[in-house]
Amino acid sequence: MPRFRDSNLKSQPSVVRKERIKDPKNPKRSVDPAALAMLDKAKEQGIITAFDRFAAQQPRCAFGYEGICCRICFQGPCRIKAEEGPGSKGICGASAYTIVARNIVRMMAGGASAHSDHGRHIAHALLHAAEGKTADYGVKDGDKLKRVAEKVGINTEGKSLNELAKEVSLAALEDFGRQTDDPCRWLYSYITNDRKRKFEDCNIVPTSIDRSVVAMLHQTHIGVDADPVNIIFGGLKTSLADYTGMHISTDLSDILFGTPKPTVSEANLGVLKEDKVNVVVHGHNPLLSQTVVDVAREMESEAKSAGAAGIQISGICCTGNEVLMRSGVPLATNFASQELAIMTGAVDVMVVDVQCIMPSIRNVAECFKTKIVTTMDNSKIPGSHHFAFDENHAVESAKGIIRLAIETFKTRKGCACDIPQVKSKVVAGFSLEAILELFAAINSERPIKVLTDAIDSGELAGVALLCGCNNLEAVHDHAHITIAKELAKANVLMVGTGCSAQALAKAGLLDPVSVEEYAGDGLKSFLQRVAEANKDKLTDGLPLMLHMGSCVDNSRAHDLHTLMAEEMGIDVPKVPFVASAPEAMSEKAVSIGAGFVALGVPTHVGTIPPIEGSKLTYGIATQIASDVYGGYFIFETNPEVAAAKLAAALEYRTWKLGIHRNAAAKYETKLCENF
Amino acid sequence: MPRFRDSNLKSQPSVVRKERIKDPKNPKRSVDPAALAMLDKAKEQGIITAFDRFAAQQPRCAFGYEGICCRICFQGPCRIKAEEGPGSKGICGASAYTIVARNIVRMMAGGASAHSDHGRHIAHALLHAAEGKTADYGVKDGDKLKRVAEKVGINTEGKSLNELAKEVSLAALEDFGRQTDDPCRWLYSYITNDRKRKFEDCNIVPTSIDRSVVAMLHQTHIGVDADPVNIIFGGLKTSLADYTGMHISTDLSDILFGTPKPTVSEANLGVLKEDKVNVVVHGHNPLLSQTVVDVAREMESEAKSAGAAGIQISGICCTGNEVLMRSGVPLATNFASQELAIMTGAVDVMVVDVQCIMPSIRNVAECFKTKIVTTMDNSKIPGSHHFAFDENHAVESAKGIIRLAIETFKTRKGCACDIPQVKSKVVAGFSLEAILELFAAINSERPIKVLTDAIDSGELAGVALLCGCNNLEAVHDHAHITIAKELAKANVLMVGTGCSAQALAKAGLLDPVSVEEYAGDGLKSFLQRVAEANKDKLTDGLPLMLHMGSCVDNSRAHDLHTLMAEEMGIDVPKVPFVASAPEAMSEKAVSIGAGFVALGVPTHVGTIPPIEGSKLTYGIATQIASDVYGGYFIFETNPEVAAAKLAAALEYRTWKLGIHRNAAAKYETKLCENF
Repeated sequence: MPRFRDSNLKSQPSVVRKERIKDPKNPKRSVDPAALAMLDKAKEQGIITAFDRFAAQQPRCAFGYEGICCRICFQGPCRIKAEEGPGSKGICGASAYTIVARNIVRMMAGGASAHSDHGRHIAHALLHAAEGKTADYGVKDGDKLKRVAEKVGINTEGKSLNELAKEVSLAALEDFGRQTDDPCRWLYSYITNDRKRKFEDCNIVPTSIDRSVVAMLHQTHIGVDADPVNIIFGGLKTSLADYTGMHISTDLSDILFGTPKPTVSEANLGVLKEDKVNVVVHGHNPLLSQTVVDVAREMESEAKSAGAAGIQISGICCTGNEVLMRSGVPLATNFASQELAIMTGAVDVMVVDVQCIMPSIRNVAECFKTKIVTTMDNSKIPGSHHFAFDENHAVESAKGIIRLAIETFKTRKGCACDIPQVKSKVVAGFSLEAILELFAAINSERPIKVLTDAIDSGELAGVALLCGCNNLEAVHDHAHITIAKELAKANVLMVGTGCSAQALAKAGLLDPVSVEEYAGDGLKSFLQRVAEANKDKLTDGLPLMLHMGSCVDNSRAHDLHTLMAEEMGIDVPKVPFVASAPEAMSEKAVSIGAGFVALGVPTHVGTIPPIEGSKLTYGIATQIASDVYGGYFIFETNPEVAAAKLAAALEYRTWKLGIHRNAAAKYETKLCENF
Repeated sequence: MPRFRDSNLKSQPSVVRKERIKDPKNPKRSVDPAALAMLDKAKEQGIITAFDRFAAQQPRCAFGYEGICCRICFQGPCRIKAEEGPGSKGICGASAYTIVARNIVRMMAGGASAHSDHGRHIAHALLHAAEGKTADYGVKDGDKLKRVAEKVGINTEGKSLNELAKEVSLAALEDFGRQTDDPCRWLYSYITNDRKRKFEDCNIVPTSIDRSVVAMLHQTHIGVDADPVNIIFGGLKTSLADYTGMHISTDLSDILFGTPKPTVSEANLGVLKEDKVNVVVHGHNPLLSQTVVDVAREMESEAKSAGAAGIQISGICCTGNEVLMRSGVPLATNFASQELAIMTGAVDVMVVDVQCIMPSIRNVAECFKTKIVTTMDNSKIPGSHHFAFDENHAVESAKGIIRLAIETFKTRKGCACDIPQVKSKVVAGFSLEAILELFAAINSERPIKVLTDAIDSGELAGVALLCGCNNLEAVHDHAHITIAKELAKANVLMVGTGCSAQALAKAGLLDPVSVEEYAGDGLKSFLQRVAEANKDKLTDGLPLMLHMGSCVDNSRAHDLHTLMAEEMGIDVPKVPFVASAPEAMSEKAVSIGAGFVALGVPTHVGTIPPIEGSKLTYGIATQIASDVYGGYFIFETNPEVAAAKLAAALEYRTWKLGIHRNAAAKYETKLCENF
């Protein structure tokens, strides 16, 4: 079985040996028909995309792939090349377990930094809005502001919205910079008391987001920690800081831009319009993209004067999710296929902020009329247009960007476009508040009981969060869709975020009609019951998975998990709740995943992070974590098997709770054939 | 010319192609006779050391070595394998210049984290001492406390030492956690106004230490910044945060433990005593090691009851430098040879704190009676003894550690030891305050003028800081010593820190008698003149290089540089001041080096960091940096040539200042033959 990675590994055993890459030389590795059409065009026109670059990177270095290449100092690189003797350790004497642990927790530090810096940006915007320093932002959702304030222990009485917003944003900023031993306030406001005790016992309570990242880098500097358990536990602390930063991002974004409510939209490249000015917003931070959306509505007439039928905004990655959730903006595509949106020739401007933006979009854009616009100080692409974002001139920047798009449209008008006529209806916008409101139509006193009762009765097998990235290693979108379909069959209620939710959206699984086709009887009856009780609000019904938002909105899923625990009177590791990142690739995914594990969630990852180089470290992630925190990682590249393992994890928890579910028992037997 | 690194590099040009490793299969790569003796013993007894592991790591991976392997996400690893086509970029489309820049600035973030977390630890200790929360620490140097307070703008009037210590430590902690846009206070208290303007113009002013690290990790996350200039400038911001953290470490350590004054001691393995209880302190943080030193003095009788002639404390790495500077504790050895100290069989306990501790010391210790004691929560070595350090029980821990050493001595007594009878006299303890006090004996009004006048008159060619690590890639200590001797000949006044100063100490260059042998006429006359004016205090005279302390004490050298600029009425990039890290290896070294460059210093590095994989990024470090900041990197592996380049850099600056020096001109011509 070829592994498609070169290896000088002499005897280091690989923990998991599976054939991961079906056909690395075939660049058409997607199940998205729109992406496949564009890949044909790319081949025809000789335009290089990530799919080609992935093939060119084969075989990959096995040392790096397994996490046993250390570059933390520059005496090396050191690669663990033997089982014993001087080649079994790095020059400093670090063992494989130390090297693997250091590498993986540094990924957590990178992920926590990305999410949290994004959260800090939002916190500063809210603060400046509250202080009247910017007219371009303000409190849009006063109720959420009050709820958040109360949740984090701020007295709301007699305070104006701006006074409260100032206090809340300063409290959030304190969570970034605190230098005392007090725990992060946001974290401690949202987790169970049992978790607090557990984290305190294990010494993994972050006192501030920034400090925990710095401490992690220090701990993994040459000649500091060599103990893999201590290192991994340090990583969990950073991941809880990440959770804190994510929660701040979600809460304050809702306050500034509104808490999402169910909304109907569309997904896939077919949302682009040849005769309109197409602006694609891409990245993660809603600060500018939401303004672009708002401003575009006022500039329709300018576009029409230029001969366009109007302005079409669409989104990629989590910026796309943010504006879908709040404004119903359609999704163009997700991470792996971002270049392919440009391949349509119809994109006038792709405006990017931070994270997951392929620098190559600029090269692809050169082949078309498309302009790439970067907007953030810390995120530039040489050769692109740069509109420096500034909270005081957000509207001005947004207008400038749309004018650039209109100018570009003028030059594009009349040129042939290749927009694949592929798109699906999408019902999204399921913030936790929105979900609880739906449940409240059945049980207004204790809305969450609608969900836990359904689990209790065996109608639902449990809850799964589908989240995370695309990874070019996997066949684009395949694992997301496969796992979703399998879990739907198994009566698992799914919530989703990130590129995972986008994969399902493009594949039509967020169209309520998909419920009929894919949901098991229990899930079907649950979704229909909830939809029926809300038919005034949900004219289109409920989709197979409830789209909760962007990556940082994994915090919404955490809160759902915690609410379930509280309702069931148990701690989080006992709740039938699992998570899956079928095609994870980023440091953020590593950090989110580790946070879920610490919060007691069996967490599947379908693309293997660099952890196989040490059995010990692999065992910490998959077993010791379970013993200590109740959550653990499931590394599994086969999506059918992964779904079976997730279903089995749910089944185990419901069984421990004394719930006997015939449907689930049947399902488990069926799936276990794949093990 | 073999490069001793394997390479799948097809066509990526290497910027510098030099023969770096003379004989990688010869593990006796040291010029230190004590180390050589122990390496013989290691070979004889089949004990593996870093020298063997270095040989086993050859050939090294050329992608990692040159910085063109990206593991920031886990789609790869991606290696830049071609000049064009899909293999010329990472899967995400990142170019070599982006990948190299991201990798190198992440090293700066790691270094800044290590130094700063150390500084934070000291700041908390000072705060707790000031608040009366620990009886084990207190303000030892009230004058320094007042000077620091005044320097950072804290009113000292009418305040008790503890009140002031509390204010100073809180101000320091603010520099770690600030969330506003104000610059780091420590940084802005110590640099010139011209530098402040420059840093503001380039948007590289850190507002807080922790935040700048997080921002850097975010900026280099997948899909964020692709612009190498922007990334490297972001790295410089982190390096200035590092400078801030180093300065806080130095200042607050002086307050807690006293500001160093000239002291006489010894260096090299010959300082170990077979008939004494040998405790070696190793690492970087003086909090516990200084207590060990203090407590040991009170426990001599316990040791004697156990049959020992007493207790011998000696040091390795910067913990060693800290206790040498303040208490005259002898140096055992430096980084590369740390395992070799254990090979003597005479070490009863090696007590380690953080940074640059080879985990392999535990394996070597297993072959002898030696016990390894770890002390910090974030720095453990599986299988070692752990005395959890805690400010409230520091004395108790220190006593426990010494008792363990005494117990170990009892079992060791009578066993044969192999202590190489190699040691040199050392005069160290040259804090900036101590240097200025020496100068004040000649010019009490403006002490620094003694130095600048000597440059003005051509007596001195300028000032060079020798600093940094050992790197097993280089022949142990060779480059440090060679460059020092060459610069001494060229009449350069040298100050030193870290493992570099330790290399010179072991080689006898910190023994004042070395001046006669190695110093050029100008340097000789300068040193003798200053020594003569201070003969009451300096009974042994001045050594060839003034040992300023540990790595964090590079802040002392920065201050010397700034004082010179102020005295000369010019900004720092015009001052004839250079730096050299002849055998750098750690992330801290990358961070310190980048900080020196931003502060206008031509900075030599003798072991090449992973930057050669992109001509553009290499050019930013060596040329664009010079255009913008006046400082720049000189990468040069040949120490003679490096010394010539450093001398030439000084010569260029003195020439620009209109200083004509015959000696220097002659010297430059002579050295230029080596170019």
